[in-house]
Amino acid sequence: MLTLTEIAAKLNLSYLGSERDISGVATLAKASAYEISFFANNKYRAQLRETTAAAVLLKATDADSCLVPALISKNPYADFARVAQLFSPLPIARPGIHASAVIEAGAQIHPQAQIDAQVFVASTAVIEQGAIIGAQSFVGPDCVVGAFSTLHARATLVKKVRLGRCVIVHSGAVLGADGFGFAPDAGQWLKVPQLGGVIIGDGCDIGANTTIDCGALEDTVLGHQVKLDNQIQVGHNVRIGDFTAIAGCTAIAGSTTIGARCLIAGGVGIAGHLQICDDVSIMAMSLVTGDISEKGVYAGAMPLMPQREWRKNAVHLRRLDGTLRAHSFAHSRADHD
Amino acid sequence: MLTLTEIAAKLNLSYLGSERDISGVATLAKASAYEISFFANNKYRAQLRETTAAAVLLKATDADSCLVPALISKNPYADFARVAQLFSPLPIARPGIHASAVIEAGAQIHPQAQIDAQVFVASTAVIEQGAIIGAQSFVGPDCVVGAFSTLHARATLVKKVRLGRCVIVHSGAVLGADGFGFAPDAGQWLKVPQLGGVIIGDGCDIGANTTIDCGALEDTVLGHQVKLDNQIQVGHNVRIGDFTAIAGCTAIAGSTTIGARCLIAGGVGIAGHLQICDDVSIMAMSLVTGDISEKGVYAGAMPLMPQREWRKNAVHLRRLDGTLRAHSFAHSRADHD
Amino acid sequence: MLTLTEIAAKLNLSYLGSERDISGVATLAKASAYEISFFANNKYRAQLRETTAAAVLLKATDADSCLVPALISKNPYADFARVAQLFSPLPIARPGIHASAVIEAGAQIHPQAQIDAQVFVASTAVIEQGAIIGAQSFVGPDCVVGAFSTLHARATLVKKVRLGRCVIVHSGAVLGADGFGFAPDAGQWLKVPQLGGVIIGDGCDIGANTTIDCGALEDTVLGHQVKLDNQIQVGHNVRIGDFTAIAGCTAIAGSTTIGARCLIAGGVGIAGHLQICDDVSIMAMSLVTGDISEKGVYAGAMPLMPQREWRKNAVHLRRLDGTLRAHSFAHSRADHD
Repeated sequence: MLTLTEIAAKLNLSYLGSERDISGVATLAKASAYEISFFANNKYRAQLRETTAAAVLLKATDADSCLVPALISKNPYADFARVAQLFSPLPIARPGIHASAVIEAGAQIHPQAQIDAQVFVASTAVIEQGAIIGAQSFVGPDCVVGAFSTLHARATLVKKVRLGRCVIVHSGAVLGADGFGFAPDAGQWLKVPQLGGVIIGDGCDIGANTTIDCGALEDTVLGHQVKLDNQIQVGHNVRIGDFTAIAGCTAIAGSTTIGARCLIAGGVGIAGHLQICDDVSIMAMSLVTGDISEKGVYAGAMPLMPQREWRKNAVHLRRLDGTLRAHSFAHSRADHD
Repeated sequence: MLTLTEIAAKLNLSYLGSERDISGVATLAKASAYEISFFANNKYRAQLRETTAAAVLLKATDADSCLVPALISKNPYADFARVAQLFSPLPIARPGIHASAVIEAGAQIHPQAQIDAQVFVASTAVIEQGAIIGAQSFVGPDCVVGAFSTLHARATLVKKVRLGRCVIVHSGAVLGADGFGFAPDAGQWLKVPQLGGVIIGDGCDIGANTTIDCGALEDTVLGHQVKLDNQIQVGHNVRIGDFTAIAGCTAIAGSTTIGARCLIAGGVGIAGHLQICDDVSIMAMSLVTGDISEKGVYAGAMPLMPQREWRKNAVHLRRLDGTLRAHSFAHSRADHD
Repeated sequence: MLTLTEIAAKLNLSYLGSERDISGVATLAKASAYEISFFANNKYRAQLRETTAAAVLLKATDADSCLVPALISKNPYADFARVAQLFSPLPIARPGIHASAVIEAGAQIHPQAQIDAQVFVASTAVIEQGAIIGAQSFVGPDCVVGAFSTLHARATLVKKVRLGRCVIVHSGAVLGADGFGFAPDAGQWLKVPQLGGVIIGDGCDIGANTTIDCGALEDTVLGHQVKLDNQIQVGHNVRIGDFTAIAGCTAIAGSTTIGARCLIAGGVGIAGHLQICDDVSIMAMSLVTGDISEKGVYAGAMPLMPQREWRKNAVHLRRLDGTLRAHSFAHSRADHD
């Protein structure tokens, strides 16, 4: 339990209204008289007026709409994240190695690291200070888990994966598996050994069941604070710049480079060997088949429509070139008449 | 081995033709003289005529096409499922805890539950009567596995996941991982603590490698008998109504609500914060970016075509607005000539 | 360390230039004076001229552009794969069973197989000669791991999965989970027991977090040397022909048959119950909803464009049929004027 005054002091914010005791955070609609909420989206203005929250984080210009105490913030959502962290701090390592873990001889495990049940750590792996290795995780040969990084239960670092500091890898993620490298030869596929590793910068998050392949010859590299959602596929030798965030189910083929501060929505497909510059946004389910050298927002998905319309439109789409050529021809004649 | 008479009696069906001994089920094409098959799709009418099955489940109107004994059913596929279950009943818990499982002190495990090898159960988890926890599964803090539910090998309930009764979670599925919540702040990403849980109703199925994130503040909620195929991504605070079925690789972004009895095909993308009403069908690989408030069938995917056509059409698609505006302009002139 | 002469002899190639000692392989840009590189893509011709590699694998017609020793090859990329394998041979089983593995009584494990830490092998499973079962893998009932096959850490063979020889299954892959089989019945979903298995031919590769469902009645079948990338979904009763390669995140719905030597790009969706003939290529993020009976290259994805253009075009796409009908009508009038 904290007071509103204490919270305002920790975040260096001012507040309007009377002192309150605060036990946690909640939505505008559900917050009790002991919970803080936030207002950052006009869609919820009606809820702001009716909230029974102890206080609301909001911009000064919205304070008039708020009938309960208001914490004035220039970035209410970010300050909400900070308040939530006060009540729910990120886990801190409880040093020790669970008896059921299998640690190969030679593995370097910092005495301040936490190794949970049924973990496997290979002989050439390194686990740094304050790292947490969740139950049933696998840390393979030549992997490094940087200081204060967390593997959630059942994360897999296959081989040659180096995590920076404060990285979070969620359950089911697989880093360092072989990339898709096969050379066609006389009607057969020849496996191309995948010799590189994976480098993950400080403060990255890797979502559940996301896969990041090791490099073929050089490494696959994520910069700092790259945020990957669930079920993303990152091919071998991809490079992703600092602060880029990518939503679920997006796939990036091998050897593509993505710049810094990009925002890539869900279900996007990005072909291999491309260069995408900094500050590019790509909307959901777009397919990127060429370089992008100008920052901006890009899109490329069919709009949704009733199936009946879709069927008729699909017929036209299949023969669009022919239809438009025929029309142009008709125009020419009309114009010349 | 059952007789045709016994099977007909269990399903409350009548049959035409002579008594047979039945050892199991098979397709029309492969069924032996001791196996039952079914006919529910006109595509296979030729196979119906030639089948050597012991008997065929079919509608009364199809009985004439069947030269072997016929079990008359109003819903042959559903009754086929029932017959198959007679020969291959769902597994029943063999009570006990495998010696290699790690059960933290405090975990509540019903004596009639089955805990397989190398499982982990956290101290605040509850495993109810008749539940089966497959080998190498992880049941994290504050999780509940309801009565007669099954986790297949290597399912993961990260935290605060409550499964109802008779739920099946397939291998590699991850429920309760943190949602994708980051607040941008001065060029950095701030992690927003994900404090909600996941509620799964009775009779749901969760496919292999599917991910369902925990809620941010409130819970992520699936109703009863929601059927999710493999590799589906369900974002934080999504709500899915009763009896809705979703095919593989579909992704649903955070805070979207999907109604009851919807049928969503594979590879669909659904943006966040949307409302989709009951009884909506969405065809494969569509992108949904707005609310759907009328029941019906929706679609939105490019049709397939030979690459040569596609290339020409893609050029037109990129400049469709310009082309159509130019045409309209030309028309105006032509009309005015 | 090998000499250039030794490598040329092993691969039956000739070389131009002086003898060198070779310690490994690298890219043209990064290769040291002890490393071999290759040139197979004109994009990198500038790098060929400037490389400091010990030698370069290339076609005879490119030898003039190479200032360092050249190994002349008709297929430089395939021969590069062979050289890389000389320095990084595929792992060979170190026979033995790790003490932490759980092997049920009755499991047949060849004395020349390698079973790593925390593996589970069911009583009715068979592990053949030279097979490697990576740590934390699960080999369920009635599964066979063929000779010299490898499961990487945490692969899952749920049940009735038969791998041929020299198969590689990457981490997180799930083979043999139940297919998505539910029969609608009076507003409820009835589970259809999934009784088939999975058959994987010799020399197949299955990528990380890929899922291949067991068959409903018959088996799901991959031919020989089928190469599946990461996060692919293969539905029940799918059949895939020899040498077909499929890139990441592609989904194939149940009962579809894909021919031999097909090349299917990433993010493709293929509907159920289709027949796709041999030698078909499908470009990224296409949706296949009908049979393909002629070999060739097919595509069907929206092109990428700036969001502003996309918005305007999307409006037209939704009403394309109406627009084109209106235009045709206008044309008719214009033509008749």
